[in-house]
Amino acid sequence: MLLDSIQEPKDLRKLSADQLNQLAGEIRERIIRVTSVNGGHLAPNLGAVELTLALHSTFHAPDDKIIWDVGHQAYIHKLLTGRNDAFFDTLRTYQGMSGFPKRTESPYDVFGTGHASTSISAATGFALARDLRQENNEVVAVIGDGALTGGEVFEAMNYAGHMNLNMKVILNDNDMSIDANVGGLSDYLTRLRSDPGYQRAKEDLDALLKKIPTVGPRMADLADRLKDGMKSMLVAGSFFEELGFKYFGPINGHDIQAMRQVFENAKGLHRPVLIHVITKKGKGYLPAELNPDKFHGTGPFDVETGQAKKGKKAASYTDVFAKTLIKLGKENDKICAITAAMGSGTGVAKFKAAFPNRAFDVGIAEGHATTMATALALDGMQPVLALYSSFMQRGFDQLIHDCALQEAPVVFALDRAGLVGEDGPTHHGAFDLSYLRLVPNMTVMAPKDERELQNMLYSALAYQKPTAIRYPRGQGVGVETLDTFDYIAPGTGEVLAQGKDACLVAIGSMVYPAAQAAEALRERGYDIGLVNARFAKPLDEALLAQVFAETDLVVTLEENALTGGFGAAVAEWAADTGLTNPLLRIGLPDHFVEAGNVSQLKKDLQLDPDGIFDQVATTLKGRQAHG
Amino acid sequence: MLLDSIQEPKDLRKLSADQLNQLAGEIRERIIRVTSVNGGHLAPNLGAVELTLALHSTFHAPDDKIIWDVGHQAYIHKLLTGRNDAFFDTLRTYQGMSGFPKRTESPYDVFGTGHASTSISAATGFALARDLRQENNEVVAVIGDGALTGGEVFEAMNYAGHMNLNMKVILNDNDMSIDANVGGLSDYLTRLRSDPGYQRAKEDLDALLKKIPTVGPRMADLADRLKDGMKSMLVAGSFFEELGFKYFGPINGHDIQAMRQVFENAKGLHRPVLIHVITKKGKGYLPAELNPDKFHGTGPFDVETGQAKKGKKAASYTDVFAKTLIKLGKENDKICAITAAMGSGTGVAKFKAAFPNRAFDVGIAEGHATTMATALALDGMQPVLALYSSFMQRGFDQLIHDCALQEAPVVFALDRAGLVGEDGPTHHGAFDLSYLRLVPNMTVMAPKDERELQNMLYSALAYQKPTAIRYPRGQGVGVETLDTFDYIAPGTGEVLAQGKDACLVAIGSMVYPAAQAAEALRERGYDIGLVNARFAKPLDEALLAQVFAETDLVVTLEENALTGGFGAAVAEWAADTGLTNPLLRIGLPDHFVEAGNVSQLKKDLQLDPDGIFDQVATTLKGRQAHG
Repeated sequence: MLLDSIQEPKDLRKLSADQLNQLAGEIRERIIRVTSVNGGHLAPNLGAVELTLALHSTFHAPDDKIIWDVGHQAYIHKLLTGRNDAFFDTLRTYQGMSGFPKRTESPYDVFGTGHASTSISAATGFALARDLRQENNEVVAVIGDGALTGGEVFEAMNYAGHMNLNMKVILNDNDMSIDANVGGLSDYLTRLRSDPGYQRAKEDLDALLKKIPTVGPRMADLADRLKDGMKSMLVAGSFFEELGFKYFGPINGHDIQAMRQVFENAKGLHRPVLIHVITKKGKGYLPAELNPDKFHGTGPFDVETGQAKKGKKAASYTDVFAKTLIKLGKENDKICAITAAMGSGTGVAKFKAAFPNRAFDVGIAEGHATTMATALALDGMQPVLALYSSFMQRGFDQLIHDCALQEAPVVFALDRAGLVGEDGPTHHGAFDLSYLRLVPNMTVMAPKDERELQNMLYSALAYQKPTAIRYPRGQGVGVETLDTFDYIAPGTGEVLAQGKDACLVAIGSMVYPAAQAAEALRERGYDIGLVNARFAKPLDEALLAQVFAETDLVVTLEENALTGGFGAAVAEWAADTGLTNPLLRIGLPDHFVEAGNVSQLKKDLQLDPDGIFDQVATTLKGRQAHG
Repeated sequence: MLLDSIQEPKDLRKLSADQLNQLAGEIRERIIRVTSVNGGHLAPNLGAVELTLALHSTFHAPDDKIIWDVGHQAYIHKLLTGRNDAFFDTLRTYQGMSGFPKRTESPYDVFGTGHASTSISAATGFALARDLRQENNEVVAVIGDGALTGGEVFEAMNYAGHMNLNMKVILNDNDMSIDANVGGLSDYLTRLRSDPGYQRAKEDLDALLKKIPTVGPRMADLADRLKDGMKSMLVAGSFFEELGFKYFGPINGHDIQAMRQVFENAKGLHRPVLIHVITKKGKGYLPAELNPDKFHGTGPFDVETGQAKKGKKAASYTDVFAKTLIKLGKENDKICAITAAMGSGTGVAKFKAAFPNRAFDVGIAEGHATTMATALALDGMQPVLALYSSFMQRGFDQLIHDCALQEAPVVFALDRAGLVGEDGPTHHGAFDLSYLRLVPNMTVMAPKDERELQNMLYSALAYQKPTAIRYPRGQGVGVETLDTFDYIAPGTGEVLAQGKDACLVAIGSMVYPAAQAAEALRERGYDIGLVNARFAKPLDEALLAQVFAETDLVVTLEENALTGGFGAAVAEWAADTGLTNPLLRIGLPDHFVEAGNVSQLKKDLQLDPDGIFDQVATTLKGRQAHG
């Protein structure tokens, strides 16, 4: 195995062209094996094997800074930078190797990522710091064409071009982000890609230009203009050139030697350069080539067949959301669905299949999506904006400034709220209850199960004001869903049991675990109440007043940061109301939660039934001891 | 006065070209008079007089939707849409006319704004809603060249171009945002502006093209390419064309008839169109033409001289911040300053004058600024990112995902925190303590006066971790500033007085008003303590334990939303610690606060010394009655 001989990137420079190609095959096999067991972002990595080999054999990391946008394509980088050992087999597992670049993992991971469109901004920072130190290392950002739709990319290129910073952007163009791409720029890249004839046409024009008489100022002006125009007409890439970047491409992203040559040339240019590389997502593994979307991020699968290993489970929240929205959409043609490159992940793709005119995927552009949804709402439509919870953070200002301030009836459907598992701290939806609750005019709720998600979606559309529903990644609890829906009035929770010793007031995904813990506590002789709070805002104040009156210890439970979250809302309310019951707040701690299996993480954080039981029992015992 | 005859935009269509020009003069005079008394965004409006007249005499608002980006240039629009009465004289005053478009004010204000770069996103929403209803009104976004640097503009144009939406974007190009523009695109616009010869060259090329023999596929291919290339070479605007927009321009933005003609032509095109209009900021009022930056947003001034009416006051927090950062920057060459088109407003421009290489204004691009600052910090620099509080919301995800998660030692200097006054709800910095406090790894503080700001800035740079300092708009309290600094350890407040009946625990701008209220309460015989909390995170838990032990009633005071803010932090901590003292939380309510003089707003919200006195006295009396 050649791969075993590579301890650091400079070992690549000893290899022949043939050996590099052989190594590419070994890397593919290694990644396929590990992701078939652990799951992971298989297709993006298979597409980036040769690109990474070309990069690491040309640039001199870690002195040269290589920044991976999103970072889900960095498995090869990890294999080449000292992590091709047992550690690689722990990919995306609890306390194992991260599925993204991570500074604490390696000096080669200079910038941690997870969300799209940050790499060029980061590169500008590294370039400025280098220039201030008067050093001369290279700074390279590797970004997919999907991430180009994020506005931060434009902000960063606009600045880098203006400052004429010495940095290189490698555009890894596979015409795919998580879903198929959208956007005028994507259309433009397609034109660049599909244009094999430009080199020939350039020669023809050169010949023609020589025939223009350059006598007199008018013809000289025209000749100059033609020369300037050539770059956009023939050399392509004028979009990037106009932002101040020198454009090279398109280049075959599976030809290591061709890329090395362009990278070497680019190193000589002390200015912003964009190198447009064409790759095939899933390259070298037929099931992934045929289904790059499915294999973008995959669970464990059978290597021979490409089939997922796990059988069919309970319907996911995403499926229930999609099914319910389609049902509602049939009855109300004002309902439309919006997402930001998460069509499959949020279920908006299914709505689009049912109502092609009323579903809008704007690309990776959550800020734009939020403002656009606001305008749709203000103009009489009923938009549902479906995003992953952690990506809603990108539209925070627009949610406040456009939507909430104008009381636009947008429904925010936030999937992947709470812990998401293997994707780790960048993807946990840990903060939404906190940052949504602080916004005036918002209604914020979370369903206890998939049936309640149906009713909440139905109700949110009836509220006619800004409303967020947050629900977990993955399967529901297995309850039946229906084709009819029940209205839930804003700020109304439900009492599931009454009890004098303690009452567990849970929201969203914590209701069922709380119920299990309550049952176990009752078996120990405690009188335990249980409430499904449903709303983080507005609180059900009447219900809370009843709970605080009937119960000694009040326990709040949420799969959200304790800081500013649901339990904080209850603490604020209790303080303002002058109630002094003891309060135990159970939720996510004030640190970033690492990657790992959700069950394992919840066990560690004492958010599973046993952990809840232990925390409540300990508090009750402490009170008895003092009482 | 012609202006008095204009009740609605259609009245404009009765006027001759000469009358429209006369009207432009009357409008300028009206706006100069009102802003000379009330203050306001004078220069942007003077630059947009003819543009607005051309728009409203061509498009048919409110059926046609006109969306003003940022909206500070919409005074003319307000004058032409039924607000040229006494209401206009209340511009930017308490309960008066907003300085921005506001839906509740007029059906002509279809979309409220205040922050930059949202208008094209909003236009896509209105265009989609129209198309779903199969209506045919026009949708027009008016955006300045400064706002073009915001990534949301790119996200929106990318989508609108791809969807081929029927919408018009008017690019109001005056080469100025709040400060002078930055960015590759700005450089590009400059090239477009300074190019009077393109029309002539186009004619020359047309003639040349006719001479190319189009026999054979190769020459036909070349001819096609030349035709395609013409648009970027000669018609200009290829940047926009490549995103899918038809480009017209540049056009003289002070020639009403020229603009009307282009607007009429554009109405016939059912597709995305960008019309590039060149205007002069401050046009028609010499002091503003000569100082467009100063007159971007001005206080009251003398019309004859253009001089500000108010005399010199105590140094502003902004000035103290700049002076202190420069002093620190002299001693430490790793310190750099970053801002996002707020160089004058934040004081970064002064730092740039002292250290040109170590100050970076990235344009209106807070997301990019945050990630770039993170990279600078991770690469050994000590960046201070200075923004207005309400604009930090645009970089919220980057603050979490890039900075805090990686524990990058960025200092966030948030000016304009709390109530800002006349700019109103879009600009109040009402939420920062709440949304910063929920982020793990953050330190969040607020100085009680300008001297403490010095010490906090000095200390934040020493912490070497993500730290935010938030401070108010405008003058400090008048205390002396120094050239030496005292270190404040993280999470340490200061006890200013002890008291058994109540202790006022205030943060930031509320410390001095709390001190006055405490004194008044003492005069009534109460024993009142006073604490300067300094930190919203981490809390000074030892100090709080002492306060809760020594005092009956604990009062928290903050110029921030009560939801999730400093008082919430204290309520969380008290609940978690099992302390049951009564808690009175004073701060901003859970609704958006309108525009108005800050003193008036604070009085209304009972945040001034009298209001604090009343709230605390009432609570103390209530406790005595029950006790």
